[in-house]
Amino acid sequence: RLRPVAPRDVRITDDFWAPRLRRNREVTIPAQHAQCETTGALRNFQRAAGSVGGDFSGRYYSDSDVYKWIEAASWSLATDPSPELTDRLDSVIKLVAGAQDDDGYLNTYFSVDRVGERWTDLVVRHEMYCIGHLVAAAVAHVRATGQTALLDVALRACTHIAERFAPGEVPGTCGHPGLEMALVELYRTTGDERWLTLAAWQLDSRGAGVLDGSEYLIDHEPVRKQSRVTGHAVRALYLYAGMADVVLETGDEELRTALEQLWADLSGGKTAVTGGVGARWDGEAFGDAYELPDRAYNETCAAIAHIFLAWRMLLLTGEPEYRDVVETALHNGVLPGLSQSGTEFFYQNPLADAGRHRREEWFSCACCPPNIARLLASLPGYLYTTSDEGLWVQLYIGNEADLRLADGTPVHVDLATELPWEGTVRLTVTPEAPTEFTLFLPVPGWAGADVSVKVNGEPVTVATDAARVALPRTWAPGDTVELTFGTEVRALAAHPRVAAAHHRVALARGPLVYCVEQADQGDTPVADIRLTGAEPWTAEHRPELLGGVTTLTAEASALGADDGPLYRPFHNGPVAVAKAQVTAIPYYAWANREPGAMRVFIPLAAR
Amino acid sequence: RLRPVAPRDVRITDDFWAPRLRRNREVTIPAQHAQCETTGALRNFQRAAGSVGGDFSGRYYSDSDVYKWIEAASWSLATDPSPELTDRLDSVIKLVAGAQDDDGYLNTYFSVDRVGERWTDLVVRHEMYCIGHLVAAAVAHVRATGQTALLDVALRACTHIAERFAPGEVPGTCGHPGLEMALVELYRTTGDERWLTLAAWQLDSRGAGVLDGSEYLIDHEPVRKQSRVTGHAVRALYLYAGMADVVLETGDEELRTALEQLWADLSGGKTAVTGGVGARWDGEAFGDAYELPDRAYNETCAAIAHIFLAWRMLLLTGEPEYRDVVETALHNGVLPGLSQSGTEFFYQNPLADAGRHRREEWFSCACCPPNIARLLASLPGYLYTTSDEGLWVQLYIGNEADLRLADGTPVHVDLATELPWEGTVRLTVTPEAPTEFTLFLPVPGWAGADVSVKVNGEPVTVATDAARVALPRTWAPGDTVELTFGTEVRALAAHPRVAAAHHRVALARGPLVYCVEQADQGDTPVADIRLTGAEPWTAEHRPELLGGVTTLTAEASALGADDGPLYRPFHNGPVAVAKAQVTAIPYYAWANREPGAMRVFIPLAAR
Repeated sequence: RLRPVAPRDVRITDDFWAPRLRRNREVTIPAQHAQCETTGALRNFQRAAGSVGGDFSGRYYSDSDVYKWIEAASWSLATDPSPELTDRLDSVIKLVAGAQDDDGYLNTYFSVDRVGERWTDLVVRHEMYCIGHLVAAAVAHVRATGQTALLDVALRACTHIAERFAPGEVPGTCGHPGLEMALVELYRTTGDERWLTLAAWQLDSRGAGVLDGSEYLIDHEPVRKQSRVTGHAVRALYLYAGMADVVLETGDEELRTALEQLWADLSGGKTAVTGGVGARWDGEAFGDAYELPDRAYNETCAAIAHIFLAWRMLLLTGEPEYRDVVETALHNGVLPGLSQSGTEFFYQNPLADAGRHRREEWFSCACCPPNIARLLASLPGYLYTTSDEGLWVQLYIGNEADLRLADGTPVHVDLATELPWEGTVRLTVTPEAPTEFTLFLPVPGWAGADVSVKVNGEPVTVATDAARVALPRTWAPGDTVELTFGTEVRALAAHPRVAAAHHRVALARGPLVYCVEQADQGDTPVADIRLTGAEPWTAEHRPELLGGVTTLTAEASALGADDGPLYRPFHNGPVAVAKAQVTAIPYYAWANREPGAMRVFIPLAAR
Repeated sequence: RLRPVAPRDVRITDDFWAPRLRRNREVTIPAQHAQCETTGALRNFQRAAGSVGGDFSGRYYSDSDVYKWIEAASWSLATDPSPELTDRLDSVIKLVAGAQDDDGYLNTYFSVDRVGERWTDLVVRHEMYCIGHLVAAAVAHVRATGQTALLDVALRACTHIAERFAPGEVPGTCGHPGLEMALVELYRTTGDERWLTLAAWQLDSRGAGVLDGSEYLIDHEPVRKQSRVTGHAVRALYLYAGMADVVLETGDEELRTALEQLWADLSGGKTAVTGGVGARWDGEAFGDAYELPDRAYNETCAAIAHIFLAWRMLLLTGEPEYRDVVETALHNGVLPGLSQSGTEFFYQNPLADAGRHRREEWFSCACCPPNIARLLASLPGYLYTTSDEGLWVQLYIGNEADLRLADGTPVHVDLATELPWEGTVRLTVTPEAPTEFTLFLPVPGWAGADVSVKVNGEPVTVATDAARVALPRTWAPGDTVELTFGTEVRALAAHPRVAAAHHRVALARGPLVYCVEQADQGDTPVADIRLTGAEPWTAEHRPELLGGVTTLTAEASALGADDGPLYRPFHNGPVAVAKAQVTAIPYYAWANREPGAMRVFIPLAAR
């Protein structure tokens, strides 16, 4: 198994992600604190503490907005100290601590006038879910700052749950998973096996009717028996990520087998080309296999959950397919959730739109915005892993890192790249002294066989179908590795059972999925664009456009206006098309200009 | 304008609809009465009357289940007297009457403990909507039986509304339309213009913020200014049907122009090939133009609302395109909502499914089942219209009718047909004495130019593109008209902007849309079926199958198993397919056997 590295040991320095992380710190995190004030989510803690009166504001899971904000702020402080943010964070943590009951219970919705309703509805209410976010925030806070104030709160809350739903005695699990992952992190942080046991107990409490046997809540069968991803996408993937965490710590083979089957179902027929998941608007749920429509729901949180699961599967197996999913979902599933300004968010991420879907500043169910913020703030932790064999690069994002090998040897790594725009990567590896270890470098799925590797300027032979290059060597300070990955534009087809993508292609280049948006097409309606799939696309980097993007342009074709009836006899034969210049932009950048139609899967010209 | 005929004057006698109407009387209507008892919907009236205690059961619009049942039972009695049903109906009407307040108010949800909440929330609560169904039931009951007990209740309720939301004084309209249509019927029934004025006032109360300006509730602009169908599909179409009713009675040109624009938007890009409407699961709403996915919502009630609107547009304009919509939506949008047994119902009618969507006996929001029952019971009223010029056949459903021309001349009509299976129709027209009038016979859209007409055995020339044949003549008793319409299997393509139907065809024959269901395909998975669009289909009537259906069979092709990744580089070129025998059944008949995949729009073999 692989081991993650601490976010604080990695400083992202590239031209793509570094400005986004800065904006996250400087704009998004402060704006979200303001939202927590405006919506009353922070005030709820004062109310629970008895320091203010009035009604509860928001929903029974509003506490989680605040916890996610704490987590985002903590990870941000881990890499970028800020006295101002530290002060603000401390004062929020003080509010949280003040709201906790003497018995460890903490949920501001079930305080004051609703104390009697505590733990009366595991199906609908999110009490454990909220504590999961509390724990995740506390772990981030202690790792970032070394301070244990919030960790103490979290430990008291978890002790309360462990006593109320004692492993082996009282089945207990939540309609919205999330606590499972957090408990394993708590175990990793404290070394107290009690939390690992509680996490495993929560998993195995499913399938016994605690949640009414609901398939939607993934309670229809024991998690060990599951092989089909179903139900609410975020809940399902948080649950499976928690399973993976338990397997990472326990090696439970039965759970691992279930996870592999679930992953096969997910990756084989229920994942959008963007890495988005959860196709259905009704219930924010997974669809049936190959149900991957244009107007997919693809909740931003579900793409984040997809990353959580894929990352844990990567740690578990080392298989490069999982890092490909992390990379795809990050660039194309999560990033579209955030506006160029850093203050507006998508909840849903459809693959086509007529121009009415726009980002919003906040939501009555505000799960996605702070989820994006905490993921971005923790992104430095996703770039590397280590193992007994050596050092593994996982995401090619420019950075400087001070890592330690398994034996404790410090290694400074400097990784420079123009990705996602150009496929060159240059690593400089500087161990304290010459050290023998293996450097593992993934060949991203998007590069295919188009890859070259040089070590200190000398070419290295790479097997044609290699998904990873292993470079065992005695690495000396200043050794360099240059990688070049092909960034040819790819026209992607879907499995033929994906009816919604039939006879259509999506465009991709490097790690980015592209789309056509009306703003770039002049008089050609997006809906009328037709491709052959073999267009010679011209990639052009345009620093002034959408914060700097590489566009793809080609001479393609467009149908003329059709004022015929909605349904008409089918006639086989060529359809009249006219030449049309078509420009595609990265999918993540859409809806940042005037409203207009957008489409990812573009029809092929009928013949 | 055209005039409808009374359901009681038409007796459906064919082999397709007559058994369905019998099942509606003998199975569905009794079963729905039992549901109204089981769910407490009937008991709510006793509770409101003070004769029983306890809590209200169901939702704030549960009264409408009972009213729809009364309407269905009344129309059934109009054509098929039944002492038993009469008794049951009388006792239900007695319950309803007993629940009405002295001031005319009637809604059992807002009785006993919620009296103070009356009329406090026009946006969400359905008080006027429920009264709309009461009025519709009362009108049906008086027309079927001549008795006015329920009409008196309805008049008191409408008087209450007319006083509370007085035309010209207090804007008032309901988040769920429906009362508008009913008020115009009340005007037609009583001749009291007060109800027409109130209907028009309710229409014009929209767009002024009474419903928060919600686009979803069609309150975003005055109805006179609307040109785009939007929001909740059933609500929108009930509203527009009410507009059409007002136009029919007032001739309001501005409203009529709005209706024509709305119809163009609906028929041009927001109607499924089945006549189903309302593509979105989220909000049971219309999608954007051409947003017509496989997994469409297509609520059964929305197809019924579509018929209500199309029928009124037909009365208004006489244009045959509207009768085509009534015919299509009836056979393919409404009929699938009902199981072969008559006791299970679809709420949603997707155009493709993996085999998990099944009909249910009832729903917590039970709008669809009794809506189907009342439409079927009133179906005899949709077969003919009259005008000053003569008699218009609208739906070719076998029947015997005793009609009256505009001048009062009685005409007996006997219409025999094997439709929807065979395209021959034989009419015998028997006026009391030889009478000069025009017989108008539609050429259904599905027949195209393939039509022949004979009068008393003598061929009549029909213009190639005629959508209607007019036969002016002095009709003598026993004159016959024979019509033959082509029933070639049609492969239908959608407008190229319908991305979800791109490079696919739907099969249709006569008025029926077909689908492929797994039960008929042997080892060939439905998802792998590919057509050329030019298959020579063999139609075979199979009396033993699904209550008797004509199946379509052809040698088509199927993809082999594909274990490649979900997304892969697009390669232009032929795809390996194997020959496969494919059988299609009428879409209305799906999901009456073992669960399995189903699809209406079938992909064309890629080239």
